[in-house]
Amino acid sequence: MDNQSCIKTITGVVIGDPAGVGPEVVVKAMCDKSLSLDGRHLLIGSASVVRRALETCGFDAEVKPVSGPGEVAHEPGILHVLDPEGLPATAFPLGSDSVAAGHAVASWMDTAIELACKGAIDALVMAPISSGSFKLAGQRSRSVSPVVGESYLLIFSGPLRVAHLTDHVPLVSVSGLITADLITSALLQLDGAMQSWGMEQRRIGVAGFNAHANGPEDREQIAPGVERARALGVNASGPDSPDAVFRRCIEGRYDMVLAMYHDQGHIAVKTWGFSGNCVLMLGPPYLFLSVAHGTAYDIVGTGQADPSMLHAALVTASSLARGRGLTM
Amino acid sequence: MDNQSCIKTITGVVIGDPAGVGPEVVVKAMCDKSLSLDGRHLLIGSASVVRRALETCGFDAEVKPVSGPGEVAHEPGILHVLDPEGLPATAFPLGSDSVAAGHAVASWMDTAIELACKGAIDALVMAPISSGSFKLAGQRSRSVSPVVGESYLLIFSGPLRVAHLTDHVPLVSVSGLITADLITSALLQLDGAMQSWGMEQRRIGVAGFNAHANGPEDREQIAPGVERARALGVNASGPDSPDAVFRRCIEGRYDMVLAMYHDQGHIAVKTWGFSGNCVLMLGPPYLFLSVAHGTAYDIVGTGQADPSMLHAALVTASSLARGRGLTM
Repeated sequence: MDNQSCIKTITGVVIGDPAGVGPEVVVKAMCDKSLSLDGRHLLIGSASVVRRALETCGFDAEVKPVSGPGEVAHEPGILHVLDPEGLPATAFPLGSDSVAAGHAVASWMDTAIELACKGAIDALVMAPISSGSFKLAGQRSRSVSPVVGESYLLIFSGPLRVAHLTDHVPLVSVSGLITADLITSALLQLDGAMQSWGMEQRRIGVAGFNAHANGPEDREQIAPGVERARALGVNASGPDSPDAVFRRCIEGRYDMVLAMYHDQGHIAVKTWGFSGNCVLMLGPPYLFLSVAHGTAYDIVGTGQADPSMLHAALVTASSLARGRGLTM
Repeated sequence: MDNQSCIKTITGVVIGDPAGVGPEVVVKAMCDKSLSLDGRHLLIGSASVVRRALETCGFDAEVKPVSGPGEVAHEPGILHVLDPEGLPATAFPLGSDSVAAGHAVASWMDTAIELACKGAIDALVMAPISSGSFKLAGQRSRSVSPVVGESYLLIFSGPLRVAHLTDHVPLVSVSGLITADLITSALLQLDGAMQSWGMEQRRIGVAGFNAHANGPEDREQIAPGVERARALGVNASGPDSPDAVFRRCIEGRYDMVLAMYHDQGHIAVKTWGFSGNCVLMLGPPYLFLSVAHGTAYDIVGTGQADPSMLHAALVTASSLARGRGLTM
């Protein structure tokens, strides 16, 4: 892509629960000059809350209200905020769940998802929200939970990139969900997404299910599923021993790992190193990224919140939207 | 313990399969002056094979045949070798399994285990052996496989120390093995061992079974099992989220993690960092350590084999035998 389309790329950023560290990590990731960012960004949330976060974190960027993505330019030092309700920061006391926050975040997410679905933004990044506030407000969750066979949770942590075949299901149920067909379709979907993101190398290591990938699920489902995907042109290998496949990815022998269950991937990523991770949901018809930390009510308002994950999400969103692959 | 008992401590070292890198990593760990070692060491195996390994690795230590642990002094530059059969290195061509190697290693292990059982050596360290040679020779395996509820596989990797409640069982079977009684008895055995090794701090983090430790096994078995162990004086916590507990150990908030299944612990250890690990089997009536790599037939004879795991096993064996805790 040329420079113009690079500048045209626009990411919508839901500022997260206004009582949590979401707004703080957003303004830090956007304003800290030691963190580079390019492309355009449209913050979605309360402009007053964004101003409060700027003050907490000691930045003096200008907050410019806009009515939509069309008004967003790449102007350093200016945060463009779409704030449909215009609610004041005082409506959201720091550090606790509230009905007001639940309603506000739900509305911001609906706005962001609508913009993403019609292509008005190229990616959507969500700062941490609170499921507690959603419940208090009687709102259904807008965060995307992966549905087996349709959507997949991915975590990127530098060279270690993991897609999860299954997510929050009881570990005893995972075995029954692993079928050759699911393995093949997940690999096809993953390879297609990696291609659309501009990843030229797409070597996918498939984790086994049992120790040393030596069990019936490994032989009867995963192996033939991988074989079929290979026959369809996917550069997949496996099943590999689960205790070896993640290090192979870290060492550059794979570009992605397909893990069989939540903890298989999460133990690898979180034990290896936690800083700079970001989360991507594969399945929605738009780029949807998030972070692996929560609202951190215990440190909100202190300016201590670490923006590295939100920054990783912004950099990744912008790079993938441009078809430039994973650059961090 | 005083200096005298320190010098008296003696570790028996089975040199491993003579066709593999075992003898090479043993002589490197013993002779490389950049690697410190103390206590006395009795190598058990072919003296001729030890000489071949010294030549491969470029060391000119003296090989001194002895008839038992009583003849072993702490003499730098001298390797004391107990070699019951006196077989020449030419009996064991490098890089392939053989009947001769299977018989020889079985005999060396029997000798070592006998010495360990009668307390003539304080610890037993086993260099990599080949199950293929054992099978060819029709020998039953002498390596200790953990038996659920009796013995446990531990891996030490710097500050990350993991005990496994279960080892090589199908992952679908693990749920049914996790009972509150097993959790309690494993924690008592682990705490007792840590105490005997001289570990003053014995904070044990117990991993949950399901994602976020949020499932029936976590609530109904692991939690009450931990609670009972605590009532009996064990400083155990959990169940913790499996994707968080290992990092807590790395960061020094725990001294040991009890993992529920093979890959839970192995993914953490092997993804975090592989060099310098060692393996300990808790259960035999003597200290039994090993390494997490194999015979590496592809590089045997080149002198490239990395001795860091065998060295970690020797240092750890000597330290635990003295009741000095885990020092690396």
